[in-house]
Amino acid sequence: MKSNQLAANRPALPEPRTKGEQTRQKIVAAAAQIFNQRGYEGSSLADLMEATGLQKGGIYRHFSSKEELAAEAFDYTWQLAWNSRLGGVSENPPHLDRLRQLITNYVECRSPVPGGCPVLNTAVDADDGNPILRERVLKALRSWMNLLQSIVKDAVKAGETQPGVDPKSLATMVIASLEGALMISRIERSQEALKRIHQYLTDYIDTRVAAH
Amino acid sequence: MKSNQLAANRPALPEPRTKGEQTRQKIVAAAAQIFNQRGYEGSSLADLMEATGLQKGGIYRHFSSKEELAAEAFDYTWQLAWNSRLGGVSENPPHLDRLRQLITNYVECRSPVPGGCPVLNTAVDADDGNPILRERVLKALRSWMNLLQSIVKDAVKAGETQPGVDPKSLATMVIASLEGALMISRIERSQEALKRIHQYLTDYIDTRVAAH
Repeated sequence: MKSNQLAANRPALPEPRTKGEQTRQKIVAAAAQIFNQRGYEGSSLADLMEATGLQKGGIYRHFSSKEELAAEAFDYTWQLAWNSRLGGVSENPPHLDRLRQLITNYVECRSPVPGGCPVLNTAVDADDGNPILRERVLKALRSWMNLLQSIVKDAVKAGETQPGVDPKSLATMVIASLEGALMISRIERSQEALKRIHQYLTDYIDTRVAAH
Repeated sequence: MKSNQLAANRPALPEPRTKGEQTRQKIVAAAAQIFNQRGYEGSSLADLMEATGLQKGGIYRHFSSKEELAAEAFDYTWQLAWNSRLGGVSENPPHLDRLRQLITNYVECRSPVPGGCPVLNTAVDADDGNPILRERVLKALRSWMNLLQSIVKDAVKAGETQPGVDPKSLATMVIASLEGALMISRIERSQEALKRIHQYLTDYIDTRVAAH
């Protein structure tokens, strides 16, 4: 990814213009907290009413279905997670330092919306059904994969890497091991697995990816 | 783990003795298919009644709550997954070949109960609540972690490894990357991520773990 593409890849939360849009955005922000922690099925109308402070009619004036609200809530959570993962990541080389910073951000930043990584949560929720949600997760996962892959490609082009580094494989390995470690850390209620994977990925980049 | 401990670590599905136990086991097996695909919250009483062919009273004669049934169903699914992951894994050295076989089994075996790895599914379901389920997932994850760690320890003791291999870190890395790759593969509906991680772990064991 060229440096000037990075900003374009960073989704912004749109400014609401009308009162209706403001209410809609408040509903999404409140619902996002519920969906990311309890999952699609686990989020009842009563939960959503309590979180938004609205009655059923007040919520569904703005959304045609629970599925539409969940999809908007996913996008909202994903945008916040994305912005937090990109915090402090330079748009300039060395590209491997950008990769290192993204990994550190994933390990060290708490998800801005409680409940952990929205991709992990929603992927497991949506993989056996729920096509609208699955589509949003897939899009988020692809943008995350494309970003990492582009950074590794830039590193290869700039001569920062050893021969034989495959951008897609390295991006897949980084994402898979971080998401898996987050799953372990959340169920163990301990940062240990994430810290071990952080150390492991750092060593791997130093010894097997970076040119000496 | 010593060789004779491997069998002891392989949980067996108990043979039901009475008609009541047979019915209970049939309910668990049918419910397992529902819970592993739809999650705890997504599995309605209607789904469970349809899968078991029983009325509410027929199910809850055998279980005190949905939570108890879900916990039993998780254990059932986990035992089948465990048996399938251990298929063809020798109890004898070389220990690194045992590790390689476990990884291959994870990548190549479909989960015997549809819906993917029960630890991944249930961890995401249970990490923000549901203490009974969380306890079962944690126990399953620890037995999986202990098995891999013990095999790496055996490999270290037998002089099969390079200096500096840390059994817990390697076990964490293998489990995290496999679980994360499965999540990606399921949402992409493609084996690609799992295959890339398989290749990656194989190369890593060959070049960075195995003594030359």
